[in-house]
Amino acid sequence: MRLYDSPFAPNARRVRMFLAEKGLDLPRANVDLAKLEQRSDDYNAVNPFQVIPALELDDGSVITESIAICRYLEELHPEPALFGSTARERAEVEMWQRLAEFQLLFTIAQTFRHTHPAMREMENPQVPAWAEASRAKAMTAMRRFDAALASRRYLAGENFSVADITGLIALDFTKPARIVIPEELGNLRRWREDVAGRASAKA
Amino acid sequence: MRLYDSPFAPNARRVRMFLAEKGLDLPRANVDLAKLEQRSDDYNAVNPFQVIPALELDDGSVITESIAICRYLEELHPEPALFGSTARERAEVEMWQRLAEFQLLFTIAQTFRHTHPAMREMENPQVPAWAEASRAKAMTAMRRFDAALASRRYLAGENFSVADITGLIALDFTKPARIVIPEELGNLRRWREDVAGRASAKA
Repeated sequence: MRLYDSPFAPNARRVRMFLAEKGLDLPRANVDLAKLEQRSDDYNAVNPFQVIPALELDDGSVITESIAICRYLEELHPEPALFGSTARERAEVEMWQRLAEFQLLFTIAQTFRHTHPAMREMENPQVPAWAEASRAKAMTAMRRFDAALASRRYLAGENFSVADITGLIALDFTKPARIVIPEELGNLRRWREDVAGRASAKA
Repeated sequence: MRLYDSPFAPNARRVRMFLAEKGLDLPRANVDLAKLEQRSDDYNAVNPFQVIPALELDDGSVITESIAICRYLEELHPEPALFGSTARERAEVEMWQRLAEFQLLFTIAQTFRHTHPAMREMENPQVPAWAEASRAKAMTAMRRFDAALASRRYLAGENFSVADITGLIALDFTKPARIVIPEELGNLRRWREDVAGRASAKA
């Protein structure tokens, strides 16, 4: 197996943090996004959708999409369970993973991509009005997550899961996106500190 | 169990088509999106994220997110398998479900939401330049899907899966979004006719 990776991309970090939680390591190939290597002919042959991460299997076939990669690794290495341990838990984890992805990570990333000068080539055309609409959606989502976290330690309940990985990486991406997490969202801040304190968060 | 549903919403249709493929039926409650019932206090108590579908379980708890609902139903009713039958197949299905969702359904829905007069309240502010950027992304994605479908019957391989449900519903949504699927994408058209011909497509 070989993981196509890139140090600053949030989706690549999701897989690295997941691997760290599992205690796994994989051979990696770096794709330099600043040089637009993801659009090169070589990488296009790996992933015609031109995004990272991608997991190349030993038979040469490729699994893309961070969560598809994580779920595949969960099947090969079930412990610790990061997608839930029962049907009901797995439904909760999937629900919160998706909410963290669409409501937080996506809205925060769109704010970044449509305002930051470094994204001019990658997100062409940049649409500043969409960045502002996304910023407002991110703020609404943070309030809803704060409310949900009033009654539970982690996003999907009492157990740490892949949903928390997505959520942490989303909140860490507020900094380049220049989004300020409101002081009064105490549950969200408590949860973020908790998850950010895990060794895997440095991956 | 009770499914909160709405006749015209693509995400609600994904769950209905999934249920039809499984031969399942569930009690349903209709949420009238035209009347913004998803923002009512009553519905807010069911799903504070104010979107449909949502699945209320017998203990009163709620699973939201169409794919989380489908995956939960797959665990309760494993046959026919719509998320794949082996670890490898499940990875392929997840990958293609996500690609269909992000690259097709999302881009087509954004084109619709940011141009259609009926969406003025639900997507406020509408950003026409984002609709146009999304339309271009949808066109690129259709070409990539067409290329992938040159070598396989269904999106994730030789077996029909939940990825095909997402893909069909995405393409059907090109009509209200006023996106024309290019004539020359013969593989995409062949696949669409194949999937649209299933009885479940009427759900």
